[in-house]
Amino acid sequence: MAGPPGIRARSQGFADIFDRSTGGALTPLNVVIERVLSPVRAMIEGRETLMFGTNSYLGLNFDPACIEAAGAALASFGTGSTASRVASGNQALHVELEKAIAELYGRRDAVVFSTGFMANLGAIGGLVREGDAAVLDAHCHASIFDACRLSGAKILTFKHNDAADLARVIAESGIAASRTLVIVEGLYSVLGDVASLEAISTVTSQTGAVLLVDEAHSLGLYGARGRGVAEAQGVEDRVDVIVGTFSKSVGVVGGYCVTSDPAFRALRFAARSYLYTASLPPPVVAAARQALSIIAGDSERRAAVSAHAETLHRGLTGLGLPPLAPPGPVGAVRMPGIKAGLDTWTALLRAGLYVNMLIPPATPNGEVVLRYSVSAAHGAADIEAALDIIAAAGRQTGVLRPAA
Amino acid sequence: MAGPPGIRARSQGFADIFDRSTGGALTPLNVVIERVLSPVRAMIEGRETLMFGTNSYLGLNFDPACIEAAGAALASFGTGSTASRVASGNQALHVELEKAIAELYGRRDAVVFSTGFMANLGAIGGLVREGDAAVLDAHCHASIFDACRLSGAKILTFKHNDAADLARVIAESGIAASRTLVIVEGLYSVLGDVASLEAISTVTSQTGAVLLVDEAHSLGLYGARGRGVAEAQGVEDRVDVIVGTFSKSVGVVGGYCVTSDPAFRALRFAARSYLYTASLPPPVVAAARQALSIIAGDSERRAAVSAHAETLHRGLTGLGLPPLAPPGPVGAVRMPGIKAGLDTWTALLRAGLYVNMLIPPATPNGEVVLRYSVSAAHGAADIEAALDIIAAAGRQTGVLRPAA
Repeated sequence: MAGPPGIRARSQGFADIFDRSTGGALTPLNVVIERVLSPVRAMIEGRETLMFGTNSYLGLNFDPACIEAAGAALASFGTGSTASRVASGNQALHVELEKAIAELYGRRDAVVFSTGFMANLGAIGGLVREGDAAVLDAHCHASIFDACRLSGAKILTFKHNDAADLARVIAESGIAASRTLVIVEGLYSVLGDVASLEAISTVTSQTGAVLLVDEAHSLGLYGARGRGVAEAQGVEDRVDVIVGTFSKSVGVVGGYCVTSDPAFRALRFAARSYLYTASLPPPVVAAARQALSIIAGDSERRAAVSAHAETLHRGLTGLGLPPLAPPGPVGAVRMPGIKAGLDTWTALLRAGLYVNMLIPPATPNGEVVLRYSVSAAHGAADIEAALDIIAAAGRQTGVLRPAA
Repeated sequence: MAGPPGIRARSQGFADIFDRSTGGALTPLNVVIERVLSPVRAMIEGRETLMFGTNSYLGLNFDPACIEAAGAALASFGTGSTASRVASGNQALHVELEKAIAELYGRRDAVVFSTGFMANLGAIGGLVREGDAAVLDAHCHASIFDACRLSGAKILTFKHNDAADLARVIAESGIAASRTLVIVEGLYSVLGDVASLEAISTVTSQTGAVLLVDEAHSLGLYGARGRGVAEAQGVEDRVDVIVGTFSKSVGVVGGYCVTSDPAFRALRFAARSYLYTASLPPPVVAAARQALSIIAGDSERRAAVSAHAETLHRGLTGLGLPPLAPPGPVGAVRMPGIKAGLDTWTALLRAGLYVNMLIPPATPNGEVVLRYSVSAAHGAADIEAALDIIAAAGRQTGVLRPAA
């Protein structure tokens, strides 16, 4: 009796394909960080490795003040809250963290979630529902797509960073703009390009659609106060809701959304991912708050990231591996196929350099890329060392021509 | 031009209703824990308060060994991993935690997620999709409903804990049992009753449906080794996948799923909530691992919870407030309406006793309840003190008759 495969048969098929395609080999999916020495150095396969594939853009996961704050909270509030914010999990620390993130953004209300993924689930699910439209940039993160799917809203995508296409999609959706939520990211974390928020926010302002910007990878890196790309581009007053995460530059885990629109002040109580999950552990909350105060007050780290990003971008371009976007904290270079990409990733790792190899569906446009990130914790010598390793590995695997 | 309200108008309406219904009053939604003194004592409104509304069933969030393990990980691995498990966030600590949870269950594979909510999203979303059926106990947690909705599977519910109704739903669903995932919880965390897993697993075994049990609130509390209700009822070999959380008895945050079915061994790579989110911070992982070793080796804490649960259940019944389920770590007593519930909750809090007041949709069957939990960290005197406070407050608000 043939028919569609059952759950077990389909899972078995997936597992078999997975085994065949990865063999027993070391891949980005199974590599283990044995020890962490600093934000930018770790032990992998017994080898000291330069890390260019974390999201510790500011190095704050090893900042002594953040570690101290976490340790103090651990001692006085314990390892976890063991409850939702609405059931004994609403500690003074959580309220203070929300004040800190609202103050950083100069906005009225902030809600903290237990992960950035859940911040998108909660904020988007709290805003739209069946009958509404969620109009997304085609390069948006998986959590945004999942949040929209869960919300029940009609999902429409527009061409990446194309405000004219956004206007077309809104006009043709058949759903009122007032019932339309437009979602973009500040910094796109795979290819490293930034949103054209001036043009996009002009469309949302003119149509009356609500605009949500996910600054997950841009918090602490863009704008005079580190608020992200909307601040850097001077369009914050046209962004209705900002979502972000504490798991990148802030160095812990968790997510947030901020808004000044009084209509959205009760958003947390409409968010199932806020109501029905345990709140963040006290040491995580305390470290996040300390990190935010560093981000708000320190532009030196941002300047260091920019300088490293420029140097690395120039060096890669010189090698014949031009990154796919202008210089920034994240960059990606195209690989000629999965085999070449995996070979090069492995060669880099064995030479002591860790980057991310990404393939669809994690990448847009079917790209196979090596993705890197730079950190304020990198030294100038680290950038030079990385370029040397890339030059040698690239020639070894054939993605670069042999040196003349 | 009247039409359905836009996003702003609807949000404003929700916020207005919310403001009107709560006023500026202290409610379970906004009460702040100012300081935490122990797993069962905290400062609220400047008052030392006995906590009977956390999920720290074993008191492990203040266990010295767990705090020490977290502190050591903080110093050596930093405050966070800053990356997904598949992008430099797969640290030795994460792999060891997965080994520990697999070993505790005596199962082959374990996957750790960043929250329990995300464990359900990932495990359920990795198993079923459009065309499949997800058949849930009607009392299942919001995260299970959301996970099923996101998966695209057809959602069907059966009457709470009613195996005959489960058999009927499977038979009438029009979807093959092999494409049917049945989901129940071990301990239902609102009313405190446990699943009838013998009868339920008989139905899934006979039909060939896949059975997933969420032991979020039962880990560490049921079964000789603390694995949960499936262990306690001797039916573990009929449960295909177990999901759980580290945010209750384990005292931190995070979730897991375990299985021995080789078909499900690559489940993590089918789970978007695993692939596209930052991994758990090192101190959280280290504390969880320490807590699991305590859970595996110590049945004294479980015995203390049982003893307290019996005493409190007997006392409440004697007062005329019989809990809605047999004695267990969680209990709930019915309130005659929201006003009486809120008045009693407030009177208890002002007298130094914290419990949870829950209303629909957090409760099943439209119930308004005061929900309590007991902890191994409670002393016998705490149980007596709680009963005294409940007796006085209940008479004050009229939910108990005046003393004769």
